[in-house]
Amino acid sequence: MKEVANMDKYIFGVDLGGTSVKLGLFSAVGELVRKWQIPTRTEDKGSNILPDIAEEIRKAMGKAGIAVRQIEGIGIGVPGPVVNNTVYRCVNLGWDIVNIRDKMNQLLPEIPKIVAENDAKLATLGEVWKGAGKGYNVVVMLTLGTGIGGGIIVNNRIFTGAHGGSGEWGHMNVEGSETDICGCGNCGCLEQYASARGIVRYGKWMLKESYKTSKLREMECFNAKDICDLARNGEEMALDILEGSCTYLGKAMCAIAEVVDPEIFLIGGGMSRAGDILLEKIKEGYEKFAIPIIEDIPIKIAELSNDAGIFGCTKIVLD
Amino acid sequence: MKEVANMDKYIFGVDLGGTSVKLGLFSAVGELVRKWQIPTRTEDKGSNILPDIAEEIRKAMGKAGIAVRQIEGIGIGVPGPVVNNTVYRCVNLGWDIVNIRDKMNQLLPEIPKIVAENDAKLATLGEVWKGAGKGYNVVVMLTLGTGIGGGIIVNNRIFTGAHGGSGEWGHMNVEGSETDICGCGNCGCLEQYASARGIVRYGKWMLKESYKTSKLREMECFNAKDICDLARNGEEMALDILEGSCTYLGKAMCAIAEVVDPEIFLIGGGMSRAGDILLEKIKEGYEKFAIPIIEDIPIKIAELSNDAGIFGCTKIVLD
Repeated sequence: MKEVANMDKYIFGVDLGGTSVKLGLFSAVGELVRKWQIPTRTEDKGSNILPDIAEEIRKAMGKAGIAVRQIEGIGIGVPGPVVNNTVYRCVNLGWDIVNIRDKMNQLLPEIPKIVAENDAKLATLGEVWKGAGKGYNVVVMLTLGTGIGGGIIVNNRIFTGAHGGSGEWGHMNVEGSETDICGCGNCGCLEQYASARGIVRYGKWMLKESYKTSKLREMECFNAKDICDLARNGEEMALDILEGSCTYLGKAMCAIAEVVDPEIFLIGGGMSRAGDILLEKIKEGYEKFAIPIIEDIPIKIAELSNDAGIFGCTKIVLD
Repeated sequence: MKEVANMDKYIFGVDLGGTSVKLGLFSAVGELVRKWQIPTRTEDKGSNILPDIAEEIRKAMGKAGIAVRQIEGIGIGVPGPVVNNTVYRCVNLGWDIVNIRDKMNQLLPEIPKIVAENDAKLATLGEVWKGAGKGYNVVVMLTLGTGIGGGIIVNNRIFTGAHGGSGEWGHMNVEGSETDICGCGNCGCLEQYASARGIVRYGKWMLKESYKTSKLREMECFNAKDICDLARNGEEMALDILEGSCTYLGKAMCAIAEVVDPEIFLIGGGMSRAGDILLEKIKEGYEKFAIPIIEDIPIKIAELSNDAGIFGCTKIVLD
């Protein structure tokens, strides 16, 4: 029996974020054996990040008694545009251009397969593999986190586009009259209204424009969750903010649908924890702009939450 | 020799428009043997259209001395959303829901392969096969005609989406403050500014908003070509209109790029005959909204003009 166990194959999924690295040890059939996380050390231009991950993987192998020959590969998700395992301008990590596969191959030369891809694309792949996107051929997921990203999966494969730019709808222009400048340098990007950070910025502007009472006015600072919680409790001002934000999201989703016409939309990322109230308002926003051919596309909340990334990292190694 | 000639295989490409049907007889290696057109008879809910096409094909076979066994198939492009050879709500033709393959099979039962697809998607396929998109793996074409349509070609195949809605960016919302209603029932659609009809509507509005002199003010009615011709000659007002129109186009193209990230953009349809001045202003419009990852995507005018459709119709039969 021990001999058989030693023959089992494993994969590591590594979802690399700006504050923490999520790691998952998976069996080769895609069962999650163990998951944990470590902090992302962004100091010194992020030079410790990949060595930290390599060490963590070695430790995990030792702990679980897994030999090198039992590892099929490592999938790594990074918060930036990736082409051929190279990430470009990964500001959150302090990185410029990094070929992740090459660096990891130097650190772990005995691992046969190392694959890197954009984190939001991998989260979408994870949802199609084991979550809310199972069984669909054309899936679009929007990840509403600090920023907005996402992915397109066609026939169980990530659609990357020509330069890894596919899914970068966080910077889609949705408001022609905006004067605040987005991180990208443009004005009126979707992220400025509908990301966890954007809805707070937009909420502050709405509060100035309105005379309605709101608990938000009494808070020294508030976050996306505060807005969603108050909206769920029926506070009119919070509902106005959420509806406005979701109208922009609906506009962008209709634009996406008029380009790729998915079978289903998934909403993921931290904001998606707001659940039903968010989903309801997104659907209302979508209906405002939808033409008949795309109006019936279902919209669902993603299911795997924070684990979507490590599942996608594993799937891409298996592909 | 005659025997060999009798063995040659042929394909008919049929590009079905609201005013005329363009037909092409192609050799099986994709050489255009002959092309011609007939009027589209839209009366009686368009019930004559497919019989007219079938008769035209029989006549053409007789004229060229082609036997039925030499026909590989017929590809048909229609101006509406197509799923599995069925077109939905084809207003220009007077059609509701029509399964084109079934109808044509009844009319020409001896033809082995009949394929129907959206006209703009087929024009894009034609450009990738024999025109400006040759050699590219991910191509987006926008067709600027009476309306705006387009297609996405990935690895030489049409990307249709789940319900044939891919490429329907003519109804992408690009102006939140618009009060004029588009044919689709919404306000602020790209078509309302950048199609051949839309630029005239938008031009009239611009003329009212401006005090600049313009030859357009002296015309009883003007069309898209008049605007482009005057812009090419440096008339300030016409340039303002064209620039405004192309700013909306640029905004939509950036949105498209942030979804599918193509290797190249092609501009087709009747408006594309305006050539360099249009291309220059589209590029300027695109630059206003592009984020770094998509800013270098080349934009070219399509090459096959009116023939793109019949080439695409032929290619889809060969696939």
